[in-house]
Amino acid sequence: MHASRRRRLPAAVLSLATVANWFRRRTRRVEAPRLRPRSEDLATTRLDLHEFTPPLTEFLGRAAYVQLMIFENLSRAVSTAPTTAAKASIGRVAELSIAKHRALADEIARNGGTVADAMEPYTESVDEFERTTRGADWYETVMTCYLTSGFLDDFFARLATGLPAGERETIEAIYAGESGEALLAEQLRLALDDNARLASRLAMWGRRLVGDTMLVARAALRLTENHSSDEARVEPVFTELIAAHTRRMDALGLTA
Amino acid sequence: MHASRRRRLPAAVLSLATVANWFRRRTRRVEAPRLRPRSEDLATTRLDLHEFTPPLTEFLGRAAYVQLMIFENLSRAVSTAPTTAAKASIGRVAELSIAKHRALADEIARNGGTVADAMEPYTESVDEFERTTRGADWYETVMTCYLTSGFLDDFFARLATGLPAGERETIEAIYAGESGEALLAEQLRLALDDNARLASRLAMWGRRLVGDTMLVARAALRLTENHSSDEARVEPVFTELIAAHTRRMDALGLTA
Repeated sequence: MHASRRRRLPAAVLSLATVANWFRRRTRRVEAPRLRPRSEDLATTRLDLHEFTPPLTEFLGRAAYVQLMIFENLSRAVSTAPTTAAKASIGRVAELSIAKHRALADEIARNGGTVADAMEPYTESVDEFERTTRGADWYETVMTCYLTSGFLDDFFARLATGLPAGERETIEAIYAGESGEALLAEQLRLALDDNARLASRLAMWGRRLVGDTMLVARAALRLTENHSSDEARVEPVFTELIAAHTRRMDALGLTA
Repeated sequence: MHASRRRRLPAAVLSLATVANWFRRRTRRVEAPRLRPRSEDLATTRLDLHEFTPPLTEFLGRAAYVQLMIFENLSRAVSTAPTTAAKASIGRVAELSIAKHRALADEIARNGGTVADAMEPYTESVDEFERTTRGADWYETVMTCYLTSGFLDDFFARLATGLPAGERETIEAIYAGESGEALLAEQLRLALDDNARLASRLAMWGRRLVGDTMLVARAALRLTENHSSDEARVEPVFTELIAAHTRRMDALGLTA
């Protein structure tokens, strides 16, 4: 299913030759679990994507719909949680995500837009991403929430740096807010402790997710006509995003 | 399925003979749509259930889990919404509901409890209610959200009146907060305008929901040994709750 979806994507989407390299990249194993608030990640951000930031309306519409999709994944994980403790914990993460969506939606309204209209152009591709990354069971769903929300929130925070002053600060503050990442990692570690055979399945699922997630991120970039120059400038940022992904996998004791 | 579930319930649950009467009760049709904030409903509340309020821990555990179930229903309605506008609108209602759950969960923690442990005793019956009232499609799911959250929030607000001073005010304020009822009614009216045949199906679904919802509410009452005295005092409150249910149906142009 993954392969067939990949074939349906326009060739241009995959022209970033380095994507293939990223799949093979192996970073040194870090043993310390990564449970910092996202705000700390932002503080250490070196590279951003300000050259590729789309106009405000496009940024907000896409970011708001992506966040709504992340929320939908989280709320599915709430509904199918195996224990009441897991349900309560992921409920908290879902709450943080819908609040982030709301904050982005409020920015759309504050700029004179209609939330649904602003999101509409991005629903088809994001819904397709959601279907592909839904996962076969609760564990894969939680893994999807953990990895894709981590990656995409990091990505949109870096893309926000090219927004007009005033908006930029507001939106960076939205992404710098409390993240549910530690709570999701905790649920996954509990599940992995309980079930050793889960590790290889979730490791494989994590590797698969990163490719699709990168494509969704890449679609949000406003590229120029000069593809090779774009790629040279985009690659270092994606390298950092993938390093963060690897740390998220490491925090579960899994190899990215 | 409904009948078979009803048979599985202990006979005592249905001993409230008036339940059967409530099913047949017809109140005068009110034409004005009911789109007031819930706080206004509370202002006009006459009767409450303070004699039947359970201990604080029990109240909070059950109310928090019921609210989490309402949230799960709402988030399913977000995921399956037919339009981006409906998705955005119900997303807002889901946000209000999870915030309400969070506020109740915070009270559990503030009183020294663990959220999951406090909710645990009520998960089985509430999950069963959720399965029975899930609905066959998006329209029925939204109807479930609209009617059961309206009824149960009204109910728990009235039950909260018997809580210790201090807690009582906090919890009443949680239920007096912004309600998504008007947004849900709007989505249902849009659907009904588009599809005349939906009306009879949703009217039937609404009638079925009220019975199951009353049983969930009734299970939260701390009754005495004197059943006939209890029933005489509980009935007027349920009559008001059902009148509110009828107004919710009327607001959609449906007969309760």
